[in-house]
Amino acid sequence: MKIFIWGMGLMGASLALRLRHEGYEVAGAVRSEKSKKFLEGQGFTVFTDHETILKVLRNYDVLVLGLNIDQCIEALEAVFENDSLKSNLVIFDMCSTKKKLLDFVDSRSQNVAFIGAHPMAGKEQQGPEVADSLLYEDRTVYLTLACETNTQRERALSTALELWQRVGAKTVVIDAERHDNLMAYVSHGLHLVSCLIAKLSGDAPLAGLTASPAAGSYRDMTRIVESSGNMWKTIIESNNKPVSHWLLELAEDAKRLAEEIETNRADIPALFESALKARNRVMHK
Amino acid sequence: MKIFIWGMGLMGASLALRLRHEGYEVAGAVRSEKSKKFLEGQGFTVFTDHETILKVLRNYDVLVLGLNIDQCIEALEAVFENDSLKSNLVIFDMCSTKKKLLDFVDSRSQNVAFIGAHPMAGKEQQGPEVADSLLYEDRTVYLTLACETNTQRERALSTALELWQRVGAKTVVIDAERHDNLMAYVSHGLHLVSCLIAKLSGDAPLAGLTASPAAGSYRDMTRIVESSGNMWKTIIESNNKPVSHWLLELAEDAKRLAEEIETNRADIPALFESALKARNRVMHK
Repeated sequence: MKIFIWGMGLMGASLALRLRHEGYEVAGAVRSEKSKKFLEGQGFTVFTDHETILKVLRNYDVLVLGLNIDQCIEALEAVFENDSLKSNLVIFDMCSTKKKLLDFVDSRSQNVAFIGAHPMAGKEQQGPEVADSLLYEDRTVYLTLACETNTQRERALSTALELWQRVGAKTVVIDAERHDNLMAYVSHGLHLVSCLIAKLSGDAPLAGLTASPAAGSYRDMTRIVESSGNMWKTIIESNNKPVSHWLLELAEDAKRLAEEIETNRADIPALFESALKARNRVMHK
Repeated sequence: MKIFIWGMGLMGASLALRLRHEGYEVAGAVRSEKSKKFLEGQGFTVFTDHETILKVLRNYDVLVLGLNIDQCIEALEAVFENDSLKSNLVIFDMCSTKKKLLDFVDSRSQNVAFIGAHPMAGKEQQGPEVADSLLYEDRTVYLTLACETNTQRERALSTALELWQRVGAKTVVIDAERHDNLMAYVSHGLHLVSCLIAKLSGDAPLAGLTASPAAGSYRDMTRIVESSGNMWKTIIESNNKPVSHWLLELAEDAKRLAEEIETNRADIPALFESALKARNRVMHK
């Protein structure tokens, strides 16, 4: 099976390294000359020109989109214009939200072997330079199927299962809407609160302190603000209702707790106890 | 210098291990027979009986309170009843809030060598079994002085500086009220939000998932809910106004952001950028 990875940043290049190690033939595309040079130094064939990419794609069996959701839609528009590409390729993305992309695909064609994929892996840093062939080892990858009338969704699923399992991931098939809602609860909303905490605590009375007042709690709870704001823009915009809902609920919980604490009515031990129970449930402990 | 550590849990026992290693004579007190047995196994002399503790204390130069704030006040009440103990011992605590304890000491005596100490170190686990002689290495320890009319505050400061520097900590002298406000911003409030996040995300649609949906963001942002709720009760109650204020502000920020996201008006890249700047400021990066 020959695999083309369009977008070889951290996620795409990590997948490329591992798939090549597993014996697959892998090439890809990037936008910058710097990334191209770096990946060629790693022995990959890499393209940057849009026309050329669409031309060489006919020699591949699988197209992996290592792009953000807006770029994915743009790339798919181009691929769908070419009937032979559209019907032969198995295509999957790696975006953090799934409904918007699946809705787009379903609205365009019932005859394309597309499947949504969301590997639960990443780093704060970006780019092929920080790629890691073990990035997906033991990580969950969510797979979301096209609509029931799609004639090729079983073929797309079977290819995606094979490839993700070969790179060490645990595959979970899930409905796109449920996936996005779940992500708002366990990841997307959290990134935003992390930013709000970092900003608010940046207003702390720091002047004149010779050492940082930050301990482990601050460090860990704000670690993810180092992520790319541009990447998160597309994620949040494509999942805005569930994220906004989660954030509003948290705001109400925080307001209620603040009022209880102000008047020393809060049951702090019960709060920690129920939080730990909920955490164990989410972490499958 | 002979040191008595009243309360040899994680914090007290870690200090005991390191001070002994540095050549000081160290003994202490605990409540449970289990802890006593464990610490005796480590070669410490350990008392459990209240009367005996007060009797042997006259043989020591320094009393370290490894207790929560309510227990500290109780212990100090007992010490202050004995004039010779009160005037000879240098005393410091290790609590996470300082104003309440300093106010108590100032109201009781102007002739006691007491200083507030808050080492910024800890673990989620409790007890002498998880003590670590390197716990305070390179950590900040805040020292808060008694009121200006206290005749012994310089003596207390000089002893505390010597001991904390010997265990590898970086000492920062700070006003108690400013300390407590700072802690609400960089630690106390964060622990509560961590609980709220863990609880709220525990409501995620988890049924039937064969793998946990939690990635690094969830794991890191909810790690601290494993802390002791009983310990946090006394911390939050002794710092309720600043904590409640911080939490209310966060609630308002979250509500505003939720509304912006709902209508796709949020500037996510700017949010991440300003969060990172604030984080670097707090972390002294």
